[in-house]
Amino acid sequence: MTYCVGIRLNAGLVFLSDSRTNAGLDAISTFRKMIVYEKPGERFMTLLSAGNLSISQSVREILQVEKLANGDDEPITIWNATSMFDAARVLGSAVRRVYEQDGPALKAAGIDFNCSMIFGGQIAGEAMRLFLVYSAGNFIEATRETCFFQIGESKYGKPILDRVLTPTTPLDQAAKCALVSMDSTLKSNLSVGLPLDLLVYEEGRLKSDRIVCIDNENPYFRMIHETWGQRLREVFEGIDDPQWDGGEAAHPLKTDTGRYEPMRKIARPEDKIV
Amino acid sequence: MTYCVGIRLNAGLVFLSDSRTNAGLDAISTFRKMIVYEKPGERFMTLLSAGNLSISQSVREILQVEKLANGDDEPITIWNATSMFDAARVLGSAVRRVYEQDGPALKAAGIDFNCSMIFGGQIAGEAMRLFLVYSAGNFIEATRETCFFQIGESKYGKPILDRVLTPTTPLDQAAKCALVSMDSTLKSNLSVGLPLDLLVYEEGRLKSDRIVCIDNENPYFRMIHETWGQRLREVFEGIDDPQWDGGEAAHPLKTDTGRYEPMRKIARPEDKIV
Repeated sequence: MTYCVGIRLNAGLVFLSDSRTNAGLDAISTFRKMIVYEKPGERFMTLLSAGNLSISQSVREILQVEKLANGDDEPITIWNATSMFDAARVLGSAVRRVYEQDGPALKAAGIDFNCSMIFGGQIAGEAMRLFLVYSAGNFIEATRETCFFQIGESKYGKPILDRVLTPTTPLDQAAKCALVSMDSTLKSNLSVGLPLDLLVYEEGRLKSDRIVCIDNENPYFRMIHETWGQRLREVFEGIDDPQWDGGEAAHPLKTDTGRYEPMRKIARPEDKIV
Repeated sequence: MTYCVGIRLNAGLVFLSDSRTNAGLDAISTFRKMIVYEKPGERFMTLLSAGNLSISQSVREILQVEKLANGDDEPITIWNATSMFDAARVLGSAVRRVYEQDGPALKAAGIDFNCSMIFGGQIAGEAMRLFLVYSAGNFIEATRETCFFQIGESKYGKPILDRVLTPTTPLDQAAKCALVSMDSTLKSNLSVGLPLDLLVYEEGRLKSDRIVCIDNENPYFRMIHETWGQRLREVFEGIDDPQWDGGEAAHPLKTDTGRYEPMRKIARPEDKIV
């Protein structure tokens, strides 16, 4: 499987991807899922991909040369698009081209055309934008209310993102949050694996300035891994246990205000339980 | 959907279930998913169910009268079984009976025969046991290494169970852990909903002594809900942010020891990026 997350903040963008690919539990491999397209000072774009690896590799290959008709003008490519929206349309078009090429044969083999991508960046003169691109080449954009996207195995790592991220979160804190989210996912799903690629983009720089590949010897990620689990248990232990009998408890578990009956108890007819 | 968790500890058993059932987002209802079968002093059993509601209701209905052939002796029922293993076999048999009755028609309608159940308890003279029963009526048992089972929407709430629960966890702490796990699930999946049923069984009691139905006014659950999110953010903020430039950092994010190359950057041919 895969786990990738892309975050759009006021201060910049954060991208994090794992690198495990599997075709069954007995066939796992390492493939990097992040790729950067950039012309420093003019445009910076990052693509994260999940789903069928043959599809996403084909999309990545085609994306650099994909052209979108533009009336009488020069066709639009990711290298001349004047907006990230147009660049996302080029990506969608690349997905559809791969679908035309491979879709029927995959369908005949009973395989879903399964790919999803996070695509974000900035083009000079425009604000940063972040998109989630689906298998049909359509896409949605992150907003202030929903400032991150996940692809792949998203559930284990979502609660911490939900609780921490807002558009005003500082970049490094968001990177830390993405790493905690990844740590929870790694712990629960064997089909997500190291190394990780982490990229932090500062608004307006128009080039990727902070990139790191994180393996299991990375001191910062090891610290996160060890500290987070331990602190979580400490917080957990610091919360009051439920008091079943104590009418004096600050937060009683049993009250008389509930509008629902206790749940059903069944006994043999001769031993009726009320 | 559904979220239920069952935990087997040295000190006893903990069961927690939500009560939301949905057929599409526009058709949600409240159905309790916990049921207790008991003859105080002799046997105590709890059943949690997930999946197609018509199947699980039928199974619950049949379970009380289901009989398992036993050679020349009296047939085995949940009321005379001398072991929880036999009681789980009776439950498996009830699932198979519903499959015989409804399976073909469901299949013709393109609906999976989908049900899963957590079933646990204690019969006098035997240790407590906890089972996970599948749609085919087969089942597995919790062990010291894997002391809990989840059914339904299990992923959001699994990390905290993984980090906290061991067989020596005290009962009330395990109940608190189940409620934290439920809180994370409620936050992320609309198809899991209040009220909750919580049951804590103390080893050897042979009756259910601690049961509560928790709705959104329950003081303890409200405290958990408010405190957990806030403390989680505090812990998160207490962990060092990554230092990109600081060679002096205690846990540097960038090191020279990684065995992987930085990930691929692509530029137009005329603007090659190293």
